[in-house]
Amino acid sequence: MPDIPGIDVKRVESDIYKIAEFGAVEGERGVYRQGFTEADWQARQWLLGYFKEHGLDAHIDGAGNVCGRYGPADQPAVIIASHLDSVPAGGIFDGTLGIVAGLECIRVIKEAGLKLNAPIELIATSEEEGRFGGMLGAQALTGKLTLDWLEQARDPKGERLTEAMAKCDLNYHDALTVFRAPDSVKAFIELHIEQGPVLEAVDKCIGVVEGISGVYKWLVKLKGKADHAGTAPMDLRSDAFMGLADFAHEIKRLIAENGTDKTRLTIGYVKLKPGYAHTVPGEVEFTIVGRDMSEEVMKDLADSSRKALSAIARSHGLMFEYEQMSWLAPKAMSNEIMAVVEEQTKKLGYSYQLMPSGAGHDAQFFADITPAGMIFIPSVNGVSHAPDEWTHWPDVEKGCNVLLHSVLALTGVED
Amino acid sequence: MPDIPGIDVKRVESDIYKIAEFGAVEGERGVYRQGFTEADWQARQWLLGYFKEHGLDAHIDGAGNVCGRYGPADQPAVIIASHLDSVPAGGIFDGTLGIVAGLECIRVIKEAGLKLNAPIELIATSEEEGRFGGMLGAQALTGKLTLDWLEQARDPKGERLTEAMAKCDLNYHDALTVFRAPDSVKAFIELHIEQGPVLEAVDKCIGVVEGISGVYKWLVKLKGKADHAGTAPMDLRSDAFMGLADFAHEIKRLIAENGTDKTRLTIGYVKLKPGYAHTVPGEVEFTIVGRDMSEEVMKDLADSSRKALSAIARSHGLMFEYEQMSWLAPKAMSNEIMAVVEEQTKKLGYSYQLMPSGAGHDAQFFADITPAGMIFIPSVNGVSHAPDEWTHWPDVEKGCNVLLHSVLALTGVED
Repeated sequence: MPDIPGIDVKRVESDIYKIAEFGAVEGERGVYRQGFTEADWQARQWLLGYFKEHGLDAHIDGAGNVCGRYGPADQPAVIIASHLDSVPAGGIFDGTLGIVAGLECIRVIKEAGLKLNAPIELIATSEEEGRFGGMLGAQALTGKLTLDWLEQARDPKGERLTEAMAKCDLNYHDALTVFRAPDSVKAFIELHIEQGPVLEAVDKCIGVVEGISGVYKWLVKLKGKADHAGTAPMDLRSDAFMGLADFAHEIKRLIAENGTDKTRLTIGYVKLKPGYAHTVPGEVEFTIVGRDMSEEVMKDLADSSRKALSAIARSHGLMFEYEQMSWLAPKAMSNEIMAVVEEQTKKLGYSYQLMPSGAGHDAQFFADITPAGMIFIPSVNGVSHAPDEWTHWPDVEKGCNVLLHSVLALTGVED
Repeated sequence: MPDIPGIDVKRVESDIYKIAEFGAVEGERGVYRQGFTEADWQARQWLLGYFKEHGLDAHIDGAGNVCGRYGPADQPAVIIASHLDSVPAGGIFDGTLGIVAGLECIRVIKEAGLKLNAPIELIATSEEEGRFGGMLGAQALTGKLTLDWLEQARDPKGERLTEAMAKCDLNYHDALTVFRAPDSVKAFIELHIEQGPVLEAVDKCIGVVEGISGVYKWLVKLKGKADHAGTAPMDLRSDAFMGLADFAHEIKRLIAENGTDKTRLTIGYVKLKPGYAHTVPGEVEFTIVGRDMSEEVMKDLADSSRKALSAIARSHGLMFEYEQMSWLAPKAMSNEIMAVVEEQTKKLGYSYQLMPSGAGHDAQFFADITPAGMIFIPSVNGVSHAPDEWTHWPDVEKGCNVLLHSVLALTGVED
């Protein structure tokens, strides 16, 4: 393979700030570029032109994905993708980085006169963040969408997906026509910020993603008896909150006994009834969100949580019920892509860490049609989905170089 | 002392149902007779007439208390009191029972031709339940009210106390003139439902109240860091809710080490921020309400809670702050009155239990000007402040008989 120049992080920085202007709101911090909003659509049209300026064969598909192709025709493509949409008041790196990094790779490849054996397809996917459920563009490209789902999806304010797409001159029926035949794709790779504190904590620069954690969500109710907080002695109460507190206290044990270092169990939502200072809580509703890289471990966590809750409920005189709101199995990344990323990272002399992705990503859908992998770089303080999301430029540079070298290893280059 | 006939529980039952009509709302369960509402005022005027029908020297004072006197003039009186107002959707016994029981005592005394050495004053106090803060009538009678407080008090909907009183033809300035000189009062006694589960649990019929528990209320904040519930490993979180759960888990130990069997520690209000299932809670706000019969114990509970919270906050990387919203010292009931009630209960052959009152009562103010005591009778399932509040009539009968005999022991009867 010929010598490969390093990427130019100044150009990456400039592109990130350019895209950050789409969805900047006067007087607000952070980016507001939710999927299929005006800001999102303006950014996509600008990006389409920018892809073309860079010599890509580009179009916006029926699901709103901005797709640009570079390299030899009639060959399965290596897809470099990330999303262009943001959460409300999101950061400037989340998603955008992966697109800009892909474009920089193509710039370097062109400038170095490298001849690829397989084409690169750069895709800015649509509605990844979840205004209408999330990863819409990726689901469209991997054949997961249904007409029924498209027609019933609404955002939290009640706006229909079909109407939001129509405002972007998209006919939602076309979203069902963009799926890629697996034999048209060679590989999928995405560079993304970690959105968590692990790489910073272990002082490593590159995260080689092993897979996307599986995740389940329970809505749990414990029902006891609301009592006067003065007249009800401690031992005659059925205090629903104390049941929840006992369960929360068991989480450490549940993970130690059933989980792994990749396990997460989170109680993020709690509602007491009646919720008055002077009344013993008669009822509590709360969520448990569990994650792990192994579905077997997820099942063990769920089973042991259920047992713990049953026993705690009995001991407090509470009624226990729960509803499983969702269960998504973990999705392993391709060993082939992981090996390529690991090898190129080593060659570049960067430190790295194998790690799961606790958050969901488009890669979990692409993994069904092609070998898929992801590269993480550190998030300062682990912050993301917030205006103060940040990644240091030297880390961005290293991440882009790993992407470039990995992509070239996947496409192959004419000597 | 001459023979004393038993009270007639049928008349008590009839009076309770009669008063329950004031504040009954079409299509709703429970009594709506909040202080200084139209229903409350109609009930007071009816009660004034009813007192007079029974030969009491009766009037409504400047604080809205309905006062009726029976027995020799110019002597310090034994006050039998309870409140006529209710919480919204309250029960038919809370407060009303004590007034009706007092009236039945006077009926029996008259019918038996007993000559009292000291007069009885029967008082239906106003605004005990707290529409404007609570125990207004009792505070007026014991000299605790101030002009400033009267002028600033509002109900939760924002209506001024002064306006609500004006609608009842009361000039609020007159509430400052009704206080009783301590030498005009011989004793204070009140029969009330327990509003808790203790008497039922120990299978005793009469509660001899030792005092009103002291109570403090803290508003506590634990501040950590909101994180993505997928990307933040368990050991890198500052999860505010897990701090609260650890503290709740310590409550049993805190009471075992610092409290008594009369201690209550309650977490009744909890608010997580941001409160999303998929986000590690960065902040939690919650209340701690502590009660005991000893102020020393209350201080120990507060100190040990503060230490526990500080240590837990440190171990989770949280910031801990709290505000003490209120601190009311316990108020002991008079040993003299307790001895009288205990003795008469024994003579009547009823089972009894010494116990604190976890809820506040008018007696805590009367205790400052005269020997004060209370008699409790069981609440079915401990329920009160709810439409399904209930006390069995045989228990009502026993409670009324204990009141009658105790009052006669306090007034003295001519042989």
